[in-house]
This record gives sequence, structure tokens and C-alpha cells, in this order.
Amino acid sequence: MKMRVAVLLAVIAMFCAADAQKCPLDGLMSSLTESVASAVLQKVTLSCTDASARGSLANCPAGYKPTGCSCGNACGSWDIRNDQTCHCQCANQDWTAARCCKIAVNY
Amino acid sequence: MKMRVAVLLAVIAMFCAADAQKCPLDGLMSSLTESVASAVLQKVTLSCTDASARGSLANCPAGYKPTGCSCGNACGSWDIRNDQTCHCQCANQDWTAARCCKIAVNY
Amino acid sequence: MKMRVAVLLAVIAMFCAADAQKCPLDGLMSSLTESVASAVLQKVTLSCTDASARGSLANCPAGYKPTGCSCGNACGSWDIRNDQTCHCQCANQDWTAARCCKIAVNY
Repeated sequence: MKMRVAVLLAVIAMFCAADAQKCPLDGLMSSLTESVASAVLQKVTLSCTDASARGSLANCPAGYKPTGCSCGNACGSWDIRNDQTCHCQCANQDWTAARCCKIAVNY
Repeated sequence: MKMRVAVLLAVIAMFCAADAQKCPLDGLMSSLTESVASAVLQKVTLSCTDASARGSLANCPAGYKPTGCSCGNACGSWDIRNDQTCHCQCANQDWTAARCCKIAVNY
Repeated sequence: MKMRVAVLLAVIAMFCAADAQKCPLDGLMSSLTESVASAVLQKVTLSCTDASARGSLANCPAGYKPTGCSCGNACGSWDIRNDQTCHCQCANQDWTAARCCKIAVNY
């Protein structure tokens, strides 16, 4: 893939050799990158939701990752299973909640 | 910025006009996309900060989302209100802290 | 998507060759930006992992940011140090775990 870019750039460079003043390839790439980066960043956002359930396990919806867990009975001991599920560790856990986030696009 | 890209595109267009068979626009586009995507992704990062307050509520700054909450008195029961505020649920909560994240750019 | 971009570029190239004054480069740039931005957005994802340690401190791996902490002894009081380390605040803390996330690329 990089090879194809290299070939393209080489072709353009040869073409540019005919008129070097008008051929700013480095500047072009960084201009394009900045332009796209700016467009991407205006659209990308962190999107979060909550999932709670009775008992000691709460699953994040598909596509979301747990970033933290909250537990009933004031319990602060938890772990995350399979990158998807909050597990509260205290005995007789009445409820468990997962904070779940993903990267989303603002259209 | 746009002018430099315009010059490049004009150069490519002229080149392609001379020999349409060698004008690899699909390959060009995907190469360009990958190249720019890679550059953009190196700039995008997860940026987090903390917000704490007395009492049972702590707000994340504008643009940030709470990813988890910490509560005084060893309390581990909390919820998030309006996608913006950590609420610690234990009685007589002395302090509440929010962990707050967003997507940011490394320049 | 790539085909559409290719067609677009071809159309613009032909159009521009015939009448350079009407060459819609602004539109081209925004099309290109959108196309590349869309490709980038399909690759970006939130990637999380866990780090735990004995005692009251747990460090996220390099490149990851803590989004929440879990503490032994049911403790829910914690803070984050240096944007890297979970610190559980209860006395005689037996273990500490950090939930750690970053922005990653799906290849």
C-alpha cells in the first residue's frame, strides 16, 4: 500500500520536476492531513451510557466498553469480565451498574 | 491550504488526461485514505481530568463525559445524571469526585 | 464510496479541463475530506484493559488512561494520580485495580 503511494508520489514528483515551483508535496500531505483531522475531530465524540441490573452482573450494550462500575450496598470492589460485564464482588449484591462508553460519530 | 491541494489535483488530472489507463484513482484514493488516516490517528487521544466537590454531586467540565465516580466514606454506590454529573448515593456524603474523559487532539 | 470518489474526480477533471474557471475545487476538497474522514472513523475504537496490584496503587500501562478504579475491602473512595495511577484511599487497602482505556485503531 505504501508502495503504491510511493509510486504515485514518484510519478507526481517527476511530473513536478518540470515545474518545481508548483509542486509542494510535503506541504500538500500535511495540509490534507490537517484538513481531514480537523473534520474527523469535529465528528468524533465519546459517547457513554449506563446499564444496570439486579444482582452482581451488568452488561454493557454491544459496541460499548465498561469504563467503571457502581455497586449496591456501597460496595466499591468490582471487576470487569470479558471486556463487557461489570461484576460487583460484595456478598448479597442487590444491584450492579456499568458505565459504558464508545467512540461515536456526530453527524 | 486548499490552493495547494488544488494544484496537486490539477497536476494529477492533467497527467491522467494524457494516459487514462495509468490513472489509478481507486488505488490512489485508498492509499491516500490510509496515509491520512494513519496520520490523523496519531493525533487523536483520550484525554481525562478529574472534578470533585463537597456533597454528593460532582460535574464534569463541558465537553467531558463521566466514565466513573469516586465517593467519600468509602461509598461505592453511584449513578450518573444527565451524562454530566456524578451522584454518590450514600447518606451524609462528604465528597464526590468524577473521572471525566473526552477525545482530544495531540498537536 | 471509493468508486464514487473516483467518478467524482474523473468528472471534476473533465469539467476542469473544459473550463478551468468553473472547477469546483472547494467541493472537491470537502468531498475528499468527508471520504477520508469516514474511512478514519470506521477504524477508530475505544480499547480498554485492566491493571491490578497489591496495596493501594495500580498503574495503567503506557498509553492508557484510567477511567475508573476498584478497591479491595469494598472501598469506593479513590483518586487518580498523574493521569496514570489509581489510588484507593481506605486504610489497609489489600488490592487496587485500574480500568484503563485508550483510543485504538481497528485494522
